[in-house]
Amino acid sequence: MAKSPEEEHPHKAFGWAARDSSGVLSPFHFSRRETGDDDVTIKILYCGVCHSDLHTVKNEWGFTGYPVVPGHEIVGTVTKAGKNVKKFKVGERVGVGVLVGSCKTCESCQQDLENYCPQLIFTYNSHSQDGTRNYGGYSDTVVVDERYVLRFPDNLPSDSGAPLLCAGITVYSPMKYYGMTEPGKHLGVAGLGGLGHVAVKIGKAFGLKVTVISTSPNKEDEAINRLGADSFLVSTDPAKLKAAMGTLDYIIDTVSAVHPLFPLLGLLKVNGKLITLGLPEKPLELPIFPLVLGRKLVGGSDVGGIKETQEMLDFCAKHGITSDIELIKMEDINTAMERLAKSDVKYRFVIDVANSLSQ
Amino acid sequence: MAKSPEEEHPHKAFGWAARDSSGVLSPFHFSRRETGDDDVTIKILYCGVCHSDLHTVKNEWGFTGYPVVPGHEIVGTVTKAGKNVKKFKVGERVGVGVLVGSCKTCESCQQDLENYCPQLIFTYNSHSQDGTRNYGGYSDTVVVDERYVLRFPDNLPSDSGAPLLCAGITVYSPMKYYGMTEPGKHLGVAGLGGLGHVAVKIGKAFGLKVTVISTSPNKEDEAINRLGADSFLVSTDPAKLKAAMGTLDYIIDTVSAVHPLFPLLGLLKVNGKLITLGLPEKPLELPIFPLVLGRKLVGGSDVGGIKETQEMLDFCAKHGITSDIELIKMEDINTAMERLAKSDVKYRFVIDVANSLSQ
Repeated sequence: MAKSPEEEHPHKAFGWAARDSSGVLSPFHFSRRETGDDDVTIKILYCGVCHSDLHTVKNEWGFTGYPVVPGHEIVGTVTKAGKNVKKFKVGERVGVGVLVGSCKTCESCQQDLENYCPQLIFTYNSHSQDGTRNYGGYSDTVVVDERYVLRFPDNLPSDSGAPLLCAGITVYSPMKYYGMTEPGKHLGVAGLGGLGHVAVKIGKAFGLKVTVISTSPNKEDEAINRLGADSFLVSTDPAKLKAAMGTLDYIIDTVSAVHPLFPLLGLLKVNGKLITLGLPEKPLELPIFPLVLGRKLVGGSDVGGIKETQEMLDFCAKHGITSDIELIKMEDINTAMERLAKSDVKYRFVIDVANSLSQ
Repeated sequence: MAKSPEEEHPHKAFGWAARDSSGVLSPFHFSRRETGDDDVTIKILYCGVCHSDLHTVKNEWGFTGYPVVPGHEIVGTVTKAGKNVKKFKVGERVGVGVLVGSCKTCESCQQDLENYCPQLIFTYNSHSQDGTRNYGGYSDTVVVDERYVLRFPDNLPSDSGAPLLCAGITVYSPMKYYGMTEPGKHLGVAGLGGLGHVAVKIGKAFGLKVTVISTSPNKEDEAINRLGADSFLVSTDPAKLKAAMGTLDYIIDTVSAVHPLFPLLGLLKVNGKLITLGLPEKPLELPIFPLVLGRKLVGGSDVGGIKETQEMLDFCAKHGITSDIELIKMEDINTAMERLAKSDVKYRFVIDVANSLSQ
């Protein structure tokens, strides 16, 4: 018989887990593996609450294994380093994002694109190479192969910097890959949530003109005056949409619900690029005429490799980019999840793990 | 009252036109404009029969104005050149493709992308700048601004070279724009018709490995032994599709009917590119997971600019690439259209205009 989560590894660990698709989280005792030769053990300080966490605890993508400890926007301090570890020392501040393992040998791994490795190991709701289930950052400690651990720049705050480890890289990577960083070009950001508000900041740091596209007219003031967007477009206003046709070079589409692409494609100029980052559970309708007649493209992207994640953290540190957050205690997580489901957060919940996770 | 097509311009012209959406073509007397200062007048020798011609004569896209003289794969000889004409001399062999005019000043025109100019003038079923309707290449003569006329390379045959002016540039341009020309990479060509068979040849000339993806198992021998494809995949065979998952770098999708993108996206590797060239009348279903999880893209493309069309003709001349054709007389056009509707042609009908168009 398989050992219990509490007994399968030598080191005691404690966090909050969902036990079923009701999505309610509660205290959970489990264990972490011994610090291997290539591993660092990390005391977790902060962990962001990503929309993927919500999808997973409610099993909305259909592949959740319970119990599940979510959390993949982790900032902490190294407490132990294996004998082969070169990048980190005990006491250093580090980050862990969406992935904690990969095959290291495939074409993707060799190109620093571990995020597209077929044997990718996610930070939670996945299995480690020893076959045991792994658990995420809503917990006191984590053990990770140093290859998948990020240096956390000195001037980047631990709490508001944590969400960059998923939200930040998710918008930064496609902007680099698809060539969406040319200063003076016009970026549309569809959806102003955890990803969208970081996309606005990163877009401005690249020197782009940024227009927020949202269904909520009441977000206009904040988009422009707080986040620094240049303009705001209400996507449910046909007249305004029509007036803005053919004005955007790129769109970062962060909307995760099923939504029409036709109006977004219409906003793009010739050669425009629409990059979709959400994972709606059903296919979207793809109108072909705008693609062909305007040489437009619809592309996807999924977080980023470790090397690029480090580059993104350094970029954000240099440009003073952080996430706007609401800091919560661990015991507030269920309320936070309920609010997140209603998009009632500006713009990311971050759990103050070290100061609130007590047994 | 507007003048009749026969009277509105000084020069008599003769061709075949469809009068209504029955799509039946019959002899048609009309007229061509005086050779302007920037124009060349061309005696038409050959004209390819593109699937767009069929769509247009039957009004399948809903914007056909009748009578319509189709034809935008035109090869002929210059018979007169306006006083400002620099590129061409009387007696030279030239080509005319899908477009014969544009604004010359917009961003697209200035980037040699006249094909994406908002004021693009198509070779037929469009209006000239003087407001009169223009007529295509199923006719004895045409007058075109030299900017939109191509030099036809000496060693490119007039008949089998004609289809390159649409089919050739339609597949060549996206391969260049989307970076699909790296030798050794693996190209899939979906649909083996007028466009697809040229895509195979151009792909091989770029040094790619080429796999034809088709619903017709009986095309395998010809795809490999005649056209030079490296392999053949029957798209209706789930076992073979599954075995080929994740093996292609690029796909040129020439299928113009509504069809599923999901299997094609599955054939692509990480970073794979699916370029769709057909114009199905309804949106396609776009599954988002493969796009996001494999950083894949779906893009479109529509013919090419004049500069690139010239480059493509020179490339094809250098590599001995022509279209496989069935040469027909003008009076056979209605039978040819019927066969084209059933994809019963290998691979392009070309009308021997000069030798069969008699009044």
